[in-house]
Amino acid sequence: MAQALVLARRGLGNTWPNPAVGCVLIRDGIVVGRGWTQPGGRPHAEVMALRQAGEAARGATAYVTLEPCAHHGRTPPCAEALVTAGVARVVAAQTDPDPRVAGRGLEILRQAGIKVTENICEAEARAMQRGFLTRITEGRPMLTLKLGTSFDGRIATSGGESQWITSELARRHVQLLRLTHDAVMVGGGTARADLPGLNLRGMGAQRQPVRVVVSSRPLPDLPPEGAAHGPLWQVSGAPQDFMRELGTRGLTRVLCEGGGILAASLLRADCVDELIGYTAGLVIGGDGRPGVAAMELAHLSDAPRFRLVEQRRIGPDLMHRWVRDRA
Amino acid sequence: MAQALVLARRGLGNTWPNPAVGCVLIRDGIVVGRGWTQPGGRPHAEVMALRQAGEAARGATAYVTLEPCAHHGRTPPCAEALVTAGVARVVAAQTDPDPRVAGRGLEILRQAGIKVTENICEAEARAMQRGFLTRITEGRPMLTLKLGTSFDGRIATSGGESQWITSELARRHVQLLRLTHDAVMVGGGTARADLPGLNLRGMGAQRQPVRVVVSSRPLPDLPPEGAAHGPLWQVSGAPQDFMRELGTRGLTRVLCEGGGILAASLLRADCVDELIGYTAGLVIGGDGRPGVAAMELAHLSDAPRFRLVEQRRIGPDLMHRWVRDRA
Repeated sequence: MAQALVLARRGLGNTWPNPAVGCVLIRDGIVVGRGWTQPGGRPHAEVMALRQAGEAARGATAYVTLEPCAHHGRTPPCAEALVTAGVARVVAAQTDPDPRVAGRGLEILRQAGIKVTENICEAEARAMQRGFLTRITEGRPMLTLKLGTSFDGRIATSGGESQWITSELARRHVQLLRLTHDAVMVGGGTARADLPGLNLRGMGAQRQPVRVVVSSRPLPDLPPEGAAHGPLWQVSGAPQDFMRELGTRGLTRVLCEGGGILAASLLRADCVDELIGYTAGLVIGGDGRPGVAAMELAHLSDAPRFRLVEQRRIGPDLMHRWVRDRA
Repeated sequence: MAQALVLARRGLGNTWPNPAVGCVLIRDGIVVGRGWTQPGGRPHAEVMALRQAGEAARGATAYVTLEPCAHHGRTPPCAEALVTAGVARVVAAQTDPDPRVAGRGLEILRQAGIKVTENICEAEARAMQRGFLTRITEGRPMLTLKLGTSFDGRIATSGGESQWITSELARRHVQLLRLTHDAVMVGGGTARADLPGLNLRGMGAQRQPVRVVVSSRPLPDLPPEGAAHGPLWQVSGAPQDFMRELGTRGLTRVLCEGGGILAASLLRADCVDELIGYTAGLVIGGDGRPGVAAMELAHLSDAPRFRLVEQRRIGPDLMHRWVRDRA
């Protein structure tokens, strides 16, 4: 299953509106097939692994990071494909909360006499597929907020100078974040001030992320959609509303890169699922521009709390990742 | 030498105005003596190790983290004590920059026919003895600035609520910082608003740190000096000046715990040698109180830069340590 999770991760940012799934087929202790959801969401991981295995799939055990699908879409359901291929056993990390599946995939397998084991490495699988799960259960994509700041939480001097606070290596790491998200989001002020590219540069990407600009005013001249830039979507209004709109349009993982006003409004609306900080070893002072604008909290207990899940050095900077646990 | 450095560390915060030194005596591959500078700075590490070894010191190798002293003070110099004890070889991590020593300790040893090896683990020894070195070379103590903030660098809400942003465990870690510093420093505003104890609680401390309050106005009623509280010193003026005054009074390691205005003035004066951040997983927003007040930097290149040397989780919080490299 650990291998299947690694394969699944390859699809993150590339498979929306479908989940990024991994599948490993093992027969007699030998890996006979490996697959992951392909760009755009099809073919599914199971189909890729079965194609690779061919006749060797007969009698094999399939490790899948999500319950195989049960609904007839553009292709027949994966549960049926596994039955047809003669797989003997299926180990799934979690059932699919999508109401079109929701246990029916595993039911098809059981009916065909396939042995089914559920909830193996479930926590890891849920954490990895959080974007897909959030879209199914809350109707909105998962949101990651990235902040690159000085030691004291500033993104620019009072005069607006901000190039560069974090290092080249940290900025390169942000490209990796973009690669694993479906869309990159900025506020109107950032779009107008910086005319950001919001694209993937030199990462071997097959698909550019959607560019989402949150603004009710006309946008500046940003590069047109093409090989180097993803679609440009403009949204506005309350965070809960435009986040739901983005979920309806199929996004599962959105990376917000600022500015401070948008970050504050997303945090106040409790729409942020993950925080990623890049902290540089310089101090700018309280007159510098804050990475998060005013949130007007009445009490400290109103501040959204996140759980530290990773900290490490990236070049000269400190990267730290925090997640918001939800009931 | 690694062992001697560990022993030396035990004295940090406890030996001022003397350096915290460690000494290990080895004969025929066996440790025959271990010593470190005792509270108040005497006896020295070498004397402690020689006492423990007794006759076994004859023919032994002494590993010392700093060149043995050469001047007659309240006791005879350690270099002479090593000669008298019949030590065969001395390995020193660094020469002592104190003009009363400055190579003369090693010279006494060489003259007596003892083999001397210098500069072993020098970088580690220098980093550990930075407070003592800074006092000798710059006339001021080393200054550590500690900041416990939210993810976005805030120490309180706009209404002033600040209990508690960081965790009980992080605050306990701050007690460890106090234990390894000679003095704890706060600004007048913090002293008046919080009436802080600035003492060691339940750490088995033999000596309470000096309390330094930076303020030109009368101080509030703080606890009197005694077993539970160190001496209370009031200083004011420009950071360079009062830091030099503290150096003259013998301090080698000072921990500044805020507030924001004092932190900003120390940073602007480039008096900060180490930054220690405790970052909690909550976001307060730009209207919260900043950990560092306005620094009025004209350019980003004027911001003091620090090098990341340590990052780790302490309970739910992230601790990160940065040092300022000086030529």
